[in-house]
Amino acid sequence: MARTIQSLERAAAMLRLLAGGERRLGLSDISSSLGLAKGTAHGILRTLQQEGFVEQDAASGRYQLGAELLRLGNSYLDVHELRARALVWTDDLARSSGEAVYLGVLHQQGVLVVHHVFRPDDSRQVLEVGAMHPLHSTALGKVLCAYDPVAHSEVVEAEREAITPRTVTGLGDVEGLLDLTRARGWAADVEETWDGVASVAAPIHDRRRMPVGAVGITGAVERVCNDGELRPEIIAAVRDCARAVSRDLGAGRF
Amino acid sequence: MARTIQSLERAAAMLRLLAGGERRLGLSDISSSLGLAKGTAHGILRTLQQEGFVEQDAASGRYQLGAELLRLGNSYLDVHELRARALVWTDDLARSSGEAVYLGVLHQQGVLVVHHVFRPDDSRQVLEVGAMHPLHSTALGKVLCAYDPVAHSEVVEAEREAITPRTVTGLGDVEGLLDLTRARGWAADVEETWDGVASVAAPIHDRRRMPVGAVGITGAVERVCNDGELRPEIIAAVRDCARAVSRDLGAGRF
Repeated sequence: MARTIQSLERAAAMLRLLAGGERRLGLSDISSSLGLAKGTAHGILRTLQQEGFVEQDAASGRYQLGAELLRLGNSYLDVHELRARALVWTDDLARSSGEAVYLGVLHQQGVLVVHHVFRPDDSRQVLEVGAMHPLHSTALGKVLCAYDPVAHSEVVEAEREAITPRTVTGLGDVEGLLDLTRARGWAADVEETWDGVASVAAPIHDRRRMPVGAVGITGAVERVCNDGELRPEIIAAVRDCARAVSRDLGAGRF
Repeated sequence: MARTIQSLERAAAMLRLLAGGERRLGLSDISSSLGLAKGTAHGILRTLQQEGFVEQDAASGRYQLGAELLRLGNSYLDVHELRARALVWTDDLARSSGEAVYLGVLHQQGVLVVHHVFRPDDSRQVLEVGAMHPLHSTALGKVLCAYDPVAHSEVVEAEREAITPRTVTGLGDVEGLLDLTRARGWAADVEETWDGVASVAAPIHDRRRMPVGAVGITGAVERVCNDGELRPEIIAAVRDCARAVSRDLGAGRF
């Protein structure tokens, strides 16, 4: 049974530290945040810098994440089977719904966006591939929690933040929404994560019927809803897309 | 003087191995490729897996890159000052030129694409953020080699592959092109990297007059050229964009 390697765990903790909050940190900040001696922290940072995982600003001496992470993240996407299978179907969904499409997978305590198709209207939009969305409030997250036991454990154990006045945070209420999600096969988020924004998502299953991700649309609540109700043609389009990707992954038709 | 840390260097080598070529590798492939004992390789892989940097396919037992790299790569972009300053200007360049826009920086032996604006024509395009382009044949690469001494050393020492029949590979010829690039302030690539595709790029300088990146457009040679010559309005638009981003980074006007 192989042991884990302490210097690697510490290096990963440094990268996580640099990925959140302040993002440009000096040696003292890093060593004290992680409870390491300065010499130890410096040895790890020096190696991470040599490998391109961190960069040091020449003027301030502060450390930040390095370019090699972008290159490796792009390579991760290149071998992502779910994403490859979903490319064409998500383009079709963006076109038919007129809204932005997101493909998400469970990662740590959230939804990692692995593909994003812009809303087809020529407006300026920010690419969210690699971004993390909350599990308990988004349509993608609810779908993952409803179908994937690991995601379910995460949402039960997490502190569920009230992101907007409409976010559902109580455990009983969240469980009720997940039951509803399983019963109808899709989930919604009407202004529970972003004011003025609504989403609809459905689960993707692989050939072993495992829930491997979720796909959904996100758009202005005025377009996605009609008289306070989610538009049925949008729900149908999202579910069609999720079924098509699942079929492409080898899932059965029934 | 801090030492570098061997287990970290080995972990980085594993990630590089998984990012190139085969991309899904078993423990034996990895340990023999890197000249490590299986137990040593397994300890590193196990830790990388625990931290989300690699994933193991349940069915085959093979390893591939993990989702944490995508998340960290996205965080790297979030703190990228050059990219942040360039967002609006590159959007404008895509609109005025009608072509795809790339922003690149030197990374290892190539150009790392840190921003990509799609050609504004609703066609299906593949996002290249995080992709590596060659230094010696692309317009972005030539600009970096002409202005950045580190990039210049890389292109001189590298094996310059003939990617298309038009790729310039001889050292004297490449140096001549770089002299020309410095003399006129921009570089071109007419079917030297991709058949049927032409590019134009110009350098971006920061407040200390350091060359920090290159910006350019890429499109069908039929649109970018006219009667075998690069269209002057496209060259002007690219150089305007590079100047605007440089100004935003604090470079002087003269």
